[in-house]
Order: sequence, then structure tokens, then C-alpha cells
Amino acid sequence: MTTPHAFDQALRLEAAGSDQPGTWLGRSSPDYWNMVGPFGGTTAATALRAILLHPALLGEPVALTVNYAAALAEGPFSVRATPVRTNRSTQHWTVELTQDDANGEAGVVMTATAVTAVRRETWSVNDTPMPAVASAAGASERFRFAGAAWTSRYDMRPVRGVIPQAWDGSGVDSLTQLWVRDDPPRPLDFPALAAMADVFYPRVWLRRATRVPAGTVSITTYFHADGRQLEACGDGFLLGQAQAQAFRNGFFDQSAQLWSEAGLLLATSTQVVYYKE
Amino acid sequence: MTTPHAFDQALRLEAAGSDQPGTWLGRSSPDYWNMVGPFGGTTAATALRAILLHPALLGEPVALTVNYAAALAEGPFSVRATPVRTNRSTQHWTVELTQDDANGEAGVVMTATAVTAVRRETWSVNDTPMPAVASAAGASERFRFAGAAWTSRYDMRPVRGVIPQAWDGSGVDSLTQLWVRDDPPRPLDFPALAAMADVFYPRVWLRRATRVPAGTVSITTYFHADGRQLEACGDGFLLGQAQAQAFRNGFFDQSAQLWSEAGLLLATSTQVVYYKE
Repeated sequence: MTTPHAFDQALRLEAAGSDQPGTWLGRSSPDYWNMVGPFGGTTAATALRAILLHPALLGEPVALTVNYAAALAEGPFSVRATPVRTNRSTQHWTVELTQDDANGEAGVVMTATAVTAVRRETWSVNDTPMPAVASAAGASERFRFAGAAWTSRYDMRPVRGVIPQAWDGSGVDSLTQLWVRDDPPRPLDFPALAAMADVFYPRVWLRRATRVPAGTVSITTYFHADGRQLEACGDGFLLGQAQAQAFRNGFFDQSAQLWSEAGLLLATSTQVVYYKE
Repeated sequence: MTTPHAFDQALRLEAAGSDQPGTWLGRSSPDYWNMVGPFGGTTAATALRAILLHPALLGEPVALTVNYAAALAEGPFSVRATPVRTNRSTQHWTVELTQDDANGEAGVVMTATAVTAVRRETWSVNDTPMPAVASAAGASERFRFAGAAWTSRYDMRPVRGVIPQAWDGSGVDSLTQLWVRDDPPRPLDFPALAAMADVFYPRVWLRRATRVPAGTVSITTYFHADGRQLEACGDGFLLGQAQAQAFRNGFFDQSAQLWSEAGLLLATSTQVVYYKE
């Protein structure tokens, strides 16, 4: 018997019961712990997995928006995926994750919406070529962040925009490029891709070379690849890129791209992040 | 008595009744009709307006995601906004718009999620300067699109990436820049900004110089400005910019920015769009 990958353990969901179709029970994973609550990427992946497990699923993920309403505590949670509209080739989903508070009252911790679709081959073009960067093997030192266990679950190799070595206010831009894959390596699938869209440390830290409290409020990811194209990536590295457009009065945005090692744009993502001071 | 602006008429909502708090009744507007159903921008604005009308509202909009589950028909609809989580300075919303079909059965036509927040003054920086373009007065001919009434509700002045004059497959990129304001002019507010994030014609038309059926599936807009900054824009032009990153098997994405005439980045937006062939 082989032990499942930590990512699959973190995403384990059990059916809540035949009287609650689409509702699943899970448990937040210490393996992917961030500073307050689990890594948002695993929470997004959990929302997507609840959809992918649903017996009424049509097609594959095209769009996923995840809103982090409150910090997920360590322990059990309940997640419910509902197909609110099914068309001929597209399907619309809402997802809600709830967790009991200290008084045993269920509160909404995460909401999500998603679109899945049966994709057909059409005229296609990749208008955002992968930046020319050093290969993963030639990239700099591995990135880990003390106090954030999840950063050890990914092999991250920054090629530009490494986390500031000195918090001296000297930042000039917010662009990071890095190679990333699961550690240990794991074949790419939609939940893994949804999680990897959120591996970038807060842009405000880089832009200001200053550490301030920050946390993602909402993330939206578009999947440009289908399951077959993800499969073709195997457990290889992806190149990720992230940059902010504006920092204003407590919130900044982040636009991100993820390419396969072969240069296929697999996903684009955007998020809005709260920051203090 | 003055007649309300067409945009305010399109966004008119009446409380469904005291037994259904947060539920509003509206009617799709022929003034903003698109080819199939109303302009998606007004639908997004309607979702936001349902939130802004809610008596429990905390703060101002930070993020809005709208999913177009089905074409809205001409006639009445019902929209319900629910504050699913209220924190100290942020609030999370879900919205659902339903409409009766020909058999009188209510179906979900649109879902949305949003985050509102009380913003505090912090360190801020605009990392995406407004592109240097000709002023609105010096821009090219006004853009209208035959068969799409809503395009006459906006004064749109393209400065780059005008709609192809010949559908001859000669496209090279997907970048459009245009000045835009309501016609007649109307003071800027959050619903108007949410709508303007969706004024760009399908990127696939420009990239291919080929007209194929296309329609937005999901749009996410982040508001970088607060109400006071929107007020300062008055009824002036905004500069809008939109570009796709990838076109693949039936779906492409669009990233957009909207600046005030003074160069303040007011909103950034992303959408995923279905296309045929």
C-alpha cells in the first residue's frame, strides 16, 4: 500500500450522505498550513474538487472564482457544490464551504462559483508566449518561507522577483517569475493547477520590500488547457509569473500566468489581496 | 420632472416584499439590448446594485464576479443579494438572478459573488500608468455596432484596435484602447464602472478579423477606487484597454483596465468568453 500524496490527503472529501447530494466533508490540512489558516490554493482546489466529484458534472473546468470569507480553522469542514444551471455544453456551479465556530455554529468560510464546459476543437492561438528564462535546473535556490509549512510542499525556483533579502523599503516592481511543481512531484490535474495559481507570495512585499500583513480575498482562475493537455505535462515544472497593477488603500490586485515547461499557457489568474498599512 | 438616465432606468429595482429581504424585482432593458439578451455590463451592474441597495451593506465594492448562466430574456426578473459573511471591515456576498421561462418555471440566469469593504488610507501606488494616447476629443470616429442597441448608450472613441473594417482574417493582435462615457453623460458610480468593464467587443473578432459567435461566460472586476474618487471623475471620459492572453478551443480570456481621464487606475477586470469555430 502506498501513502497518498500530501496534496491528495489535503483534498480528501467524503460524501456527507445520500440525503445531502453534493455535500462533502473534509478537514483542513496542517501539511499545507500558512500563517493564518491553510494555504488558499488548497482551499480553491477543494472547491474545484467538490465540483469534479459531483455525479452531474458536465465537461471540464473553464473558470473558477473563490472568495475567502474567513480564515479556515484546523479541523473538519463541510463543502457543498450545486450545479445551478446546465446548458448544452456549459454548466454553472456555486460552492459553499462552512465550518463550525467555537460555539458549534456553522459559518460560511468560503464561497465559489465555477463554469465547466465540454470543449470542442476550434481555431486557437497562444498570444502570451512564455518568457525566456533560465530552465528550472539552472534557476536559483529553492524558495521556502519559515512559518508557512505549505511552501515546503512545492519545489519553487524563482528566476526573477525573489522574496526580498532585506526588508529595507527598496522595492521597485512587483514581478515574480518562478518554476514550480509539487514536492514530491505529482501528475498535474485541475485541482493542482488551481492551487498553483496561488503560490506567489504577496506582491506588496516585493513592491515595497516591506513585510505587512496581507491575505487573498478573492481569486479567479481561467483554465485554458483541457485534461489531456494537463496530463501531457506529467509531473514536470510549470513556469509561473505574477504581477500587480495597482496598490490602493488596503487592497492590491495580482495577475498571474502558468505555462507548461513546453510553453503552453495552461491557466491565467487574477486575485485581489488585502494588505495593512 | 426630469426623466431618469437610461442607465438608471435599466437598473431600476423594486423590493420584492418585506417577507423576502434582499430580493428585488427588475426588468431587462431594450435600451441596452445586445444581439442575444441585454448587454452583460448592465446585468453585472444590476448584481452590484442589488448589493448596494441592501440595508446590511458594509463599505464599498472591492471585487465582483458575475457568471452569465443563460441569456436573459426581455421582461421581468428577480434578483437576490445575500450577505453570507460580515467581518469587521469586509463583507462577502452571493447574488442570484432568476427569470421564469416560457413554462413559468424559474431558472437561474446569472450568479455573482462580491466583496465589499471599508477601506482605510494606506501606502498606495499605481503600477500601471495610463497609456499615452490621443485625447478623447482627438480620437477617431465614434464606435457603434449595428444590431446592438447598447453601443449607442455609450460614447466610445477608439484610439487603437478599432473593430475590423474588413472581415478578411488579417488580424494580428487583440489590443483595443478607447475612450468611453455614458451617452448622455452621467456621473460615474460603481454600477456604471462595473458596466464599462464590459464594453469591449469580442477580442476574437479583432485577433482574427473574423466575426464568429461569442459571448461572455464570466467576468471579474476589481475596484481600485473608492466612491469619492469615482465622484471626482464626474461625467468625464474613461480610458479603457482590453487584450486577450489566450484563445483555445472555444474560450478566450480578456484582461481590461479603466483609467480616469486624470490617469487614475479605477478598475481592472478579466473575463472569459465563449466563441465558436
